[in-house]
Amino acid sequence: MKKLAAMIAAAATLCAYAVDPIDKSIDISAREDGLNTSSLSMVRSLMRSHAPECQFNDNVDFSAWQGRVAEEMTRLMRHPEAPAAEPRLVASAQRPGYRIERWETFPLPDAVVGVFVLIPDGVDADHPARGAALCIPGFGQTKELLAGEAERNYMLEASRPEGEIKQASMARFFAEQGLVAVAVDNVSAGELSDNGRFDYVHTARHLLELGWSWLGLTSWQDRVVLDWMKTLPEVPADRIIVSGFSLGTEPLMVLGVTDPSIYAFVYNDFLCRTRERILSLTAPDDNGYRQFPNNIDHLIPGFLAKFDFPDLVAAMAPRPVICTEGGLDRDFRLIQRAYARAGAPADAFEYHHYAMFEADSTRSVDLEVVPAGIDKWEYFRLCNVDPPHHYFKTEHVRPWLDRILPKR
Amino acid sequence: MKKLAAMIAAAATLCAYAVDPIDKSIDISAREDGLNTSSLSMVRSLMRSHAPECQFNDNVDFSAWQGRVAEEMTRLMRHPEAPAAEPRLVASAQRPGYRIERWETFPLPDAVVGVFVLIPDGVDADHPARGAALCIPGFGQTKELLAGEAERNYMLEASRPEGEIKQASMARFFAEQGLVAVAVDNVSAGELSDNGRFDYVHTARHLLELGWSWLGLTSWQDRVVLDWMKTLPEVPADRIIVSGFSLGTEPLMVLGVTDPSIYAFVYNDFLCRTRERILSLTAPDDNGYRQFPNNIDHLIPGFLAKFDFPDLVAAMAPRPVICTEGGLDRDFRLIQRAYARAGAPADAFEYHHYAMFEADSTRSVDLEVVPAGIDKWEYFRLCNVDPPHHYFKTEHVRPWLDRILPKR
Repeated sequence: MKKLAAMIAAAATLCAYAVDPIDKSIDISAREDGLNTSSLSMVRSLMRSHAPECQFNDNVDFSAWQGRVAEEMTRLMRHPEAPAAEPRLVASAQRPGYRIERWETFPLPDAVVGVFVLIPDGVDADHPARGAALCIPGFGQTKELLAGEAERNYMLEASRPEGEIKQASMARFFAEQGLVAVAVDNVSAGELSDNGRFDYVHTARHLLELGWSWLGLTSWQDRVVLDWMKTLPEVPADRIIVSGFSLGTEPLMVLGVTDPSIYAFVYNDFLCRTRERILSLTAPDDNGYRQFPNNIDHLIPGFLAKFDFPDLVAAMAPRPVICTEGGLDRDFRLIQRAYARAGAPADAFEYHHYAMFEADSTRSVDLEVVPAGIDKWEYFRLCNVDPPHHYFKTEHVRPWLDRILPKR
Repeated sequence: MKKLAAMIAAAATLCAYAVDPIDKSIDISAREDGLNTSSLSMVRSLMRSHAPECQFNDNVDFSAWQGRVAEEMTRLMRHPEAPAAEPRLVASAQRPGYRIERWETFPLPDAVVGVFVLIPDGVDADHPARGAALCIPGFGQTKELLAGEAERNYMLEASRPEGEIKQASMARFFAEQGLVAVAVDNVSAGELSDNGRFDYVHTARHLLELGWSWLGLTSWQDRVVLDWMKTLPEVPADRIIVSGFSLGTEPLMVLGVTDPSIYAFVYNDFLCRTRERILSLTAPDDNGYRQFPNNIDHLIPGFLAKFDFPDLVAAMAPRPVICTEGGLDRDFRLIQRAYARAGAPADAFEYHHYAMFEADSTRSVDLEVVPAGIDKWEYFRLCNVDPPHHYFKTEHVRPWLDRILPKR
């Protein structure tokens, strides 16, 4: 067996010549006729020449465009037609200021997906909450983290480690603000992991083989929870917020453009155009390999042929959205124009840059195109991203919440 | 920047708990109700319960089934509707026994893809060849290797390194047998590589984002070449063979089921069911991670929901096919039944096991289901695969060729 392994390793060296240095100019042909000879350049040329079909622009009929975005997103996500079975209450525990419940949902025939519901003291069927928040975690995060519970405390059997409650406990934050907060897991994470391994990529690959996607399944699980939230007596169905951290902004956008009944959105990540990001990151890494912005758990085949993230946020108009971690002013201007077209008040779309890019003088305010040939660090800098300060920004969300959902 | 890199590395540890040992029984629920709690198990359950829609079975109306396979394959491959521009002759050189020509093809607007044509001495417009062969390389291979030319000798400027001609020179073999042989590159390899890097995965990811696939583009490039071959005066259009080595069998199957004018096929790899292979390889590797049979250059979203490789070979009936590197007898029996249903003579489908599995006593002749919980080495053994002896099997192809294409 060792001999075979060595042979396979030797064969793998077949997959590259003695390699020339890679420069940054992959899109410049060495031929007089300007044609591309590398497959990568051919494919990048295809990507450049195919703008997303449902991009927002100032000439669209807003309502027709919004309908088309919803339709294409519905098609891409391939949610099952069969309704999910009714969720079941399994456990509950009292915490200081709120009760936490474990419910089990059944998004697929052989599957059970647990969620936590945080109900502020004093809230019940006769005294519904101020609002509700569906809280979707980021990469590597769990519903336990969001709810301020100990990791792996799926059944609420352990007591909560009070000293360890993190700034990331988004659901606990909303409960403290008087909202019913529901914390979910992303596909492959936490209780949904493979025996402790958060195998996003491995699960995604299986899903892609079936013609589905990581985001398709994740957003389906979240939709099952969201639809059920609307039926809870403690929840005012017309005051539900979807709040996504980092990776969690992706299912947020799916729910946002396909469910007009959602009241408002907390988009806690920087905002960017993924297609442009792919076309920009051509500088080789330390090993001489070109970079790709993310793994295949972000891959939804054909997605970028339809729209990009700023289009999706624009399609949430006129409902309140807060973007808490900046991005390019160009994209925020686009969203503001969309909100104006939708007849939204000026403050319906609110955004904040990272603190270090807050002053106009610290940003490329007028940058319209991110250049190719850069690496991810340069990309972050150009797009006003400060990765070490990527966290759930209660300092922006709290006052926004009091504005869009006044206390009773 | 180093501080940032360290921080990101630290954050990456977030993506798994202190990890429990992974056992082989990922599909066995720990719950009394038998429901899956890991996303991976949920998704595997979906994959198990969804047999490919166009699987061959003994009750199909063969011709209707074959038509449906062609239709679904056409839909999955998403070949461009615009015809490619006419190929152009760019260079030629004489070799012992044949002339080699470089032609340039134009499968996409900004792209040029070179191919080699090997024309046996004595063959011309007035004396067409015995037949022709479109030769598709394996992973890490190039058209130069297949033609017996020096690597990077794209323009036929260098002389051929006679001492270095490899057993892999499939196109040269066919030319020596009196056929016009055409050697192509796979997407991202050789002349189509990124400055010497054979970046199959990176190119594939770009294509998938656009809703296309590595195999979609590769088979499109090959189709352009095949359709052009039919117009060459030296080529009898009704005697074209498609010959694929390893990875090259994938475009072979695409062309095979969608172009009934192809005369015959050399399938030089072991034959397997990819869906079963995915479901079987659940044993963790040395690092505790589960395996997947291949990279995303093999991913065609939704492909496995339609059919698997044995179905595709079955759909080539009644045309001659030779499988040279074995697989499961179960799958060969299925193909034989399909050929019988198509009214093909008994010898139209020919197959050979690897030498070490040739005797029935060395194989699991009756194995009907490959079990889950195994690793790739056990999979190879169960499926009669002898990886160190994976090469182009002229010893089987030569006599087969003389049978299906008698010398004039």
